[in-house]
Amino acid sequence: MYRARMHVLIAPDSFKGSLGAAAAAQAMARGVMRARPDARVETIPLSDGGEGFAAVLRGAKAGVERSSRVTGPRGAKVDAAWTLIDNGATAVIESAAAVGLGLVSESDRNASETTTAGIGELVGEALHTGATRIVVGLGGTATTDGGAGMAQALGIVFDGASVPVTGARLASIRGVDATGRDARLASVHILAVTDVDNPLTGPDGAAHVYAPQKGATAREAAELDAALAHLARVVGDPGLRPGDGAAGGLGYGLRVFLGATRVSGVDFVLEQTGFEVALERADLVLTGEGRLDAQTAHGKVVAGVTARCAAREVPAVALVGAVADGAESMYARGLTACFSLCNRPMSEADAVRDAAALLEHAAENVVRVWAARAT
Amino acid sequence: MYRARMHVLIAPDSFKGSLGAAAAAQAMARGVMRARPDARVETIPLSDGGEGFAAVLRGAKAGVERSSRVTGPRGAKVDAAWTLIDNGATAVIESAAAVGLGLVSESDRNASETTTAGIGELVGEALHTGATRIVVGLGGTATTDGGAGMAQALGIVFDGASVPVTGARLASIRGVDATGRDARLASVHILAVTDVDNPLTGPDGAAHVYAPQKGATAREAAELDAALAHLARVVGDPGLRPGDGAAGGLGYGLRVFLGATRVSGVDFVLEQTGFEVALERADLVLTGEGRLDAQTAHGKVVAGVTARCAAREVPAVALVGAVADGAESMYARGLTACFSLCNRPMSEADAVRDAAALLEHAAENVVRVWAARAT
Repeated sequence: MYRARMHVLIAPDSFKGSLGAAAAAQAMARGVMRARPDARVETIPLSDGGEGFAAVLRGAKAGVERSSRVTGPRGAKVDAAWTLIDNGATAVIESAAAVGLGLVSESDRNASETTTAGIGELVGEALHTGATRIVVGLGGTATTDGGAGMAQALGIVFDGASVPVTGARLASIRGVDATGRDARLASVHILAVTDVDNPLTGPDGAAHVYAPQKGATAREAAELDAALAHLARVVGDPGLRPGDGAAGGLGYGLRVFLGATRVSGVDFVLEQTGFEVALERADLVLTGEGRLDAQTAHGKVVAGVTARCAAREVPAVALVGAVADGAESMYARGLTACFSLCNRPMSEADAVRDAAALLEHAAENVVRVWAARAT
Repeated sequence: MYRARMHVLIAPDSFKGSLGAAAAAQAMARGVMRARPDARVETIPLSDGGEGFAAVLRGAKAGVERSSRVTGPRGAKVDAAWTLIDNGATAVIESAAAVGLGLVSESDRNASETTTAGIGELVGEALHTGATRIVVGLGGTATTDGGAGMAQALGIVFDGASVPVTGARLASIRGVDATGRDARLASVHILAVTDVDNPLTGPDGAAHVYAPQKGATAREAAELDAALAHLARVVGDPGLRPGDGAAGGLGYGLRVFLGATRVSGVDFVLEQTGFEVALERADLVLTGEGRLDAQTAHGKVVAGVTARCAAREVPAVALVGAVADGAESMYARGLTACFSLCNRPMSEADAVRDAAALLEHAAENVVRVWAARAT
């Protein structure tokens, strides 16, 4: 098929600690336009459901940002941003915005005495606006409470536990009473967005795998694992579904207390942003993220983009901060090529600082190679 | 034109301090073959006339290496390698192999008390083998003697100067007597290979520009400049030709005492290695060197390769250690694209150590982009 102008679809994740997805996409777009001023360039900033998830959806769907004062992970109030899209029909909540590890100082980290009550309060705010779908992006929380704090904030009573319930206090629960659960929940659809496969408990569970990075000692992690197992017994659901262990068991809580459906972050974002429709027009796709490695294949933006490009036979080139060992496994999944934005030996600090200019330069060079091939 | 297999011509310079040109070409070739096992790959290691010049010609033309014991830059004897190509008809001498800065310890560096006598002795060896063409690659010498030491070793008498003559001793010369000049020189063609444009003396001359990096103080550099100017007055040739100032004035000496013709190193190597013939078969050229910057345009391998590729409209991609500021000026000269071999933030030491593997990886990715474009 003859095309007078090349059409480049630019769809990166954020470059963690350096560039947001929109800024990364814009830098790549500048590079493409420098290489081929006549190119058609379309940018779709993406997210895997982690940091930047709500911002990406807000940008793609002309959403509105809201802010609510809710209970933070350690009990003190925090101002948490959330988002309304689809003309208010859908609320998007990033769990880290209300109960994130980043809201707790290093010295105040505590995997046991933290609560997801703030998530429940945000869900309540969303219900109040009349949203009929509530999307909760999981990940990056300071909590390990199995989502009990959230449920409590929505009217579910944990017999024997104080308010707000925390990971440690789960151990004293004697029963769960959902009689007083917010009645509005019956008519909304709740999505739990995560690409984490961990179950609620056990060696691969929320406590053993994630509590240590939230400040828990090995002993505290074991106690939290026992507390989550106790919660599961009281609830009557063992928490074995993939994703139950996401965000300190918030995945479990969303499912058993709010009837949430689990969705993949990358899949959800790709669908919501209209990526596949845009892909039909593309000759070449540029994607990227901070780091490409053996884990990229699992629920990362580059993997999701690559799979869809491969299915349509559109070449996909990843521009990343670091190409780490194992990245070449992505070739077999359809990735055309990957390049680091580093254009000389440099420190990570320099790469982070100059990321926008370097990314522009990398995109320019890739498109120059692409465009130079005689057709 | 339909081609079932892509043909890639790989023609890099050495990566200074890291990979020789042949090793760099082989690493790139491995990457191309990984990307496209069916590709036709041709390697032509190149040189700009500096370090690796003789090795490149020896490799390209099935030459023979010789070694001769000659006077080193500080007077002590050294074993200097040189090369015979064209079945012995052409001798190739790298000035640095006999009188190079690398032959002098840091503490023993002396821009004034150093001599090119060893070059004259190598020319004598070449004459002895019956070579009818002698090619001298200039650059990297420890000397600033205007080539007088070389001339003296070939029978030219510098009245008033001791043996061997050095840069400092030029000041006492009262006359030049070429009566005893080696008679065999009359029937050979001597080529002085350099891309340096400096004249013999003055602010852009051999002493002011290069003596400081050979150990001279500003005062010594000024004295050497005056000594070279004195030599030029005695000889009766002001030394204003571009290249007269190469290798501490050895360019001047080769011209005025031996009747040498100056040639560009890149041009000479490209011609001798059959680059242009190979280019006729190529769909894509990969070149490279240690560093791409604003100086690349001046007599560097990447510039020479790029110019020839541009003339034939064959895309040329440079893979380099570092893309430095100003490198983008090469786009206007026809360079298709440039990529660093660095695939993540890394130190220069790591880039040097892992250069072969990184270069292979970079070549693989460039060819993957190239080959992915639907034709």
